[in-house]
Amino acid sequence: DPDGNAEENGEKNILSGFKTTTVLKDSALEKAVFLHGKLEDQEAVVILQKTPIREDTVAEIFSGCKLKLEMKNDIYSIYHLQPPAHLNVIKTTVICPATEHHVKKYQVQEHFLVEETGEDYLSITLPYIKEQRFSLQWVFNILEKKAEADRIVYEDSDKDVGFVLLPDMKWDQKQIHDLYLIAIVHQRDLKSLRDLTASHLPLLQNICTKGKAAILKRYGLPSSKLRIYFHYQPSYYHLHIHFTALSFDVPGCGVVRAHLLSDVIQNLQSDSHYYRKRTLSFPLRADDGLFSKFKQAERL
Amino acid sequence: DPDGNAEENGEKNILSGFKTTTVLKDSALEKAVFLHGKLEDQEAVVILQKTPIREDTVAEIFSGCKLKLEMKNDIYSIYHLQPPAHLNVIKTTVICPATEHHVKKYQVQEHFLVEETGEDYLSITLPYIKEQRFSLQWVFNILEKKAEADRIVYEDSDKDVGFVLLPDMKWDQKQIHDLYLIAIVHQRDLKSLRDLTASHLPLLQNICTKGKAAILKRYGLPSSKLRIYFHYQPSYYHLHIHFTALSFDVPGCGVVRAHLLSDVIQNLQSDSHYYRKRTLSFPLRADDGLFSKFKQAERL
Repeated sequence: DPDGNAEENGEKNILSGFKTTTVLKDSALEKAVFLHGKLEDQEAVVILQKTPIREDTVAEIFSGCKLKLEMKNDIYSIYHLQPPAHLNVIKTTVICPATEHHVKKYQVQEHFLVEETGEDYLSITLPYIKEQRFSLQWVFNILEKKAEADRIVYEDSDKDVGFVLLPDMKWDQKQIHDLYLIAIVHQRDLKSLRDLTASHLPLLQNICTKGKAAILKRYGLPSSKLRIYFHYQPSYYHLHIHFTALSFDVPGCGVVRAHLLSDVIQNLQSDSHYYRKRTLSFPLRADDGLFSKFKQAERL
Repeated sequence: DPDGNAEENGEKNILSGFKTTTVLKDSALEKAVFLHGKLEDQEAVVILQKTPIREDTVAEIFSGCKLKLEMKNDIYSIYHLQPPAHLNVIKTTVICPATEHHVKKYQVQEHFLVEETGEDYLSITLPYIKEQRFSLQWVFNILEKKAEADRIVYEDSDKDVGFVLLPDMKWDQKQIHDLYLIAIVHQRDLKSLRDLTASHLPLLQNICTKGKAAILKRYGLPSSKLRIYFHYQPSYYHLHIHFTALSFDVPGCGVVRAHLLSDVIQNLQSDSHYYRKRTLSFPLRADDGLFSKFKQAERL
């Protein structure tokens, strides 16, 4: 091997020839990037992920580092710290040759925040929902006990204020840390938050009270450990409410998608048409059909 | 300076003498550790956070790295990659001297959801805030240009509707993926959402319009890619608004803590006393002083 460096490293740096075509995903939170490109004429996906800081290396990081002051204000300072290189590796996953399937798997779709007025709902969103005719058969199967009957945690069978409470499919029910249940209403004419008026307050209050009680009884989790909310837009247009453990940072509980049941109840108490009139903000993926409709209507 | 290394580094490694007492928090997801300890006989909190991988440095990382194969299976391989040291810094925040308050802030604790009525705010929360006399000196330093003046992205100096917009300390400004700015109002009598009435609509609308415009101009990010919100409870009681990239799943943007500026504006437009009267839900840590006050008042 004529390459002294490679020999010193113990192996050849096969990645020195990697050419990035596109950045599939860039996770600033997790300190990771997902790249698609070419490695020796083959399609490849390369994932770079910084590793967690090991507590048992902290003393060595401090004693062996280089420090550069970036900012100082009162008792707060920020430095850039260069640790000893061997304590700061990047975990690198190479998939080569990669197929189209691998590329798509890691590709992030861009999201845009849509501000939907009450008018937009009637002229853009509602026609889109109707046109799509999303199948709700699986929801009706649950309500009619034709499927998942053994998973039901609680039911109130009243046709007006009744609902079925069951674990969300994402929850394996192995620990309450990530508890996730869904309450599905028996009424079949409620698509989402937008359909709610003060006339639905008995339904909402019933779900709030009995849902909390059922979760306390079955799982021992009090309501002060629960986050109870609607999604808007929901992923299916039959009214349902999410019950998740407060300690669990579940996707979809962000302020741009979730609406707390307690806020919805208060808003309807003071204004029956709150959710008919309000502009509601929510994120849409660029490849979502509804996104195209908003674009067509020049509302984006 | 007899220390050749320190001279070479440009500055003395003040952290070489840091002694860790306790690990307050270890976030494997975010690649960060929060340490409490002693720095030259003073109490200090030191936060080590690996930085996001900058897309524009990826080619240099690949060409200048050392690679070590850890695992290979079919088309999948995993390596440990040592990048050139200057491309792999750890952002290090030092708070020194640190108070009990700082130590608690970063310590992981159980959370409970509190439902604070308008009455509770007046009888429990407001007296607590006043009694604590949290120092806002660092905020006033920013507003008066005594600190961080070079970091200001935009300012409207009007005393009623004006504000300062600057990058949050959590954002390193290296990529817009995790963009995070804070707008701090010039008015000094607004503690939080609870103090807002319809009379503050001009202030809020001004921040909304000019904040968006400044971010578009400086960073090229349009408002459809922004999440703009208040925290309640905020971490300090001088009114401020968070501007974060929609694509960035930042802690604190959950429905139990964040309130969208666009919702706040609409709510105040239809009811000037919305935030005086409403029950607001928020999580509190079990060791938070305010939590004890709610317990004492038998509101938990």
